[in-house]
Amino acid sequence: MSENNKICIKADELKSLVTKIFQKLNVCENDAIITADTLVQADVRGIHSHGVIRLPIYAKRLHNQAVNAQPNIKENYLKDNIVVIDADNGLGQPVSMHATKIAINKAKEYGVALIGIKNSHHYGMASYYTNYIAKHGMIGISMSNTAALMPAIGGSEAVVGNNPISISVPTERDFIIAVDMATSEVAMGKILQAEKENKEIPNTWGKDKNGNPTTNPTDVLESGLLSPVGGPKGFGLSMIVDIFTGILLNGAFGKHVKSIYKEVDKPNRCGHFFIAIDINTFLPMQTFYQLVNEYEQQIKSSKKASGVEEIFLPGELEYLKECEQRKNGIYLAEKVVNELKEIAHLYGVTHPFDEKE
Amino acid sequence: MSENNKICIKADELKSLVTKIFQKLNVCENDAIITADTLVQADVRGIHSHGVIRLPIYAKRLHNQAVNAQPNIKENYLKDNIVVIDADNGLGQPVSMHATKIAINKAKEYGVALIGIKNSHHYGMASYYTNYIAKHGMIGISMSNTAALMPAIGGSEAVVGNNPISISVPTERDFIIAVDMATSEVAMGKILQAEKENKEIPNTWGKDKNGNPTTNPTDVLESGLLSPVGGPKGFGLSMIVDIFTGILLNGAFGKHVKSIYKEVDKPNRCGHFFIAIDINTFLPMQTFYQLVNEYEQQIKSSKKASGVEEIFLPGELEYLKECEQRKNGIYLAEKVVNELKEIAHLYGVTHPFDEKE
Repeated sequence: MSENNKICIKADELKSLVTKIFQKLNVCENDAIITADTLVQADVRGIHSHGVIRLPIYAKRLHNQAVNAQPNIKENYLKDNIVVIDADNGLGQPVSMHATKIAINKAKEYGVALIGIKNSHHYGMASYYTNYIAKHGMIGISMSNTAALMPAIGGSEAVVGNNPISISVPTERDFIIAVDMATSEVAMGKILQAEKENKEIPNTWGKDKNGNPTTNPTDVLESGLLSPVGGPKGFGLSMIVDIFTGILLNGAFGKHVKSIYKEVDKPNRCGHFFIAIDINTFLPMQTFYQLVNEYEQQIKSSKKASGVEEIFLPGELEYLKECEQRKNGIYLAEKVVNELKEIAHLYGVTHPFDEKE
Repeated sequence: MSENNKICIKADELKSLVTKIFQKLNVCENDAIITADTLVQADVRGIHSHGVIRLPIYAKRLHNQAVNAQPNIKENYLKDNIVVIDADNGLGQPVSMHATKIAINKAKEYGVALIGIKNSHHYGMASYYTNYIAKHGMIGISMSNTAALMPAIGGSEAVVGNNPISISVPTERDFIIAVDMATSEVAMGKILQAEKENKEIPNTWGKDKNGNPTTNPTDVLESGLLSPVGGPKGFGLSMIVDIFTGILLNGAFGKHVKSIYKEVDKPNRCGHFFIAIDINTFLPMQTFYQLVNEYEQQIKSSKKASGVEEIFLPGELEYLKECEQRKNGIYLAEKVVNELKEIAHLYGVTHPFDEKE
């Protein structure tokens, strides 16, 4: 069951394993299931950077009580459809799904809903929540701040995170248009990969420790400074995310958000923001779907660049991967599987891997 | 009064001239003043691409009745704070200011307001409206679609505009944090400039007619294909803008939006979308201002890259230019002034330029 040092496991088996580990870490069953599902769903869609690769650090932080396994969540209704939630430094996923469901219910009634969360923790793949909103016939927007790792334009010190933004739009099929983007040009993982392969990187990906552009991946790994996508555009968007997810909620922003990796004893304190906009308030769903379908066709059937076989819409490759991996199982890197086995062993949870190798 | 072939004029004089020209084109006084103010304000902030350089094409399109000088605007209240306006193919600026004011009033009461406009025309600088919202103690968001000029990822035919997004956030000073960005890597003007200066361009700026990246500006001017900022990220954002400003309003999107330059006899039919979010609904303004101020300081006082003297926030350079040019006058390129003189002459409006040269 392995392919290029990858090991295949069914999504349900993986989810069950991860759920049990969270439960051993004192997380209640419901929260454990939600958190496991977000991680596994990222792997299913091929976004492994937000998948079960994160379990070891989540486990360590729960163990250290930097993440509160049984948080006392407080909701503050500012308006019927505007809510701020204090997550009490619990896991980001359960409180985010809670917020997502409030957003959907309130948008159904009021056309739009805004839900902010402060004092939270890494919430995984941003499009998990916006896709859920889209499945309910709405446009979903979600954003989160992260620990600082991008310098200002002209700076050489990290001041903002590569704060992700996700926006999802339903189509009449299962497929959801999903724009899920970090505000950096690329993720740190891509720099790491270039270094391993001994390759130069484009000088727009990161900065050296003096804040200068560099083509040497080692310089960027040393400085820890990613470049914002499109320079001032990505930097500006990142600030806006910090303002929505931090300042507007009177929560943590900029340097106040802690790295989940570097400060394993301290609360992360990141914030999230969710917007749901009910499509049916604007026009009948059937009309919307017809127009979206026409728009998709304009793009999909447009003239291709030389050598290109198919044009893909935002989220389409992830959707195709999801269809394939839900059916055939997820291929995980051997290193990730070894870490899962170790944690399972540590917490006395039986795992399904040995029989597969 | 000239400097490097530039001619200086006071903002008020320029606004008065442009207003009179619009009035001669059958635009009512109020609409003429608003439209003139948006164009002049762009020049004042140094964003000349959205300044009075646009007057000749606006005038031509009004003359051709591709823009309706006296539109019959219809408002449809979907909820108390969600409105769709049909602009009847009038000028984009007056209807956008009208929408902006509704957004502010409704957000004051409901915390948030969404206003869409369809069948409109180029609305100028997107941050004109969001800065106005910010001045009322709110976060303002605005977007617009434009005629297609970016290919899909892997495409070689224009399918989406470089649809701009602007987000503005107030500070306790006059300065407003303003992220006003097109979703292309750069504007076509930058490609044009590189060609004039006989310079290569980065291969991320545009595509040749086969959809391949190119460093030759002439290839891009020939193909008319700008690249989206950050590749799939900018392309995805551009689609989202089309969905908000076109599809959700049952208006024009993608290829249905016409170029104001290439189809001078046809309605532009672009759409706009405005969101106002009342800060005071979330936290006291004074607290918000304190936090924004701290955030600004984190960024402004962060370690600079070698050779950099000052770090500027989004919108800060434009704000400094505004302060300077409001006081000392705007420097316009001689070519732009000559066009203004020609139009003034055509419509029998006296202009203040001859005495300045």
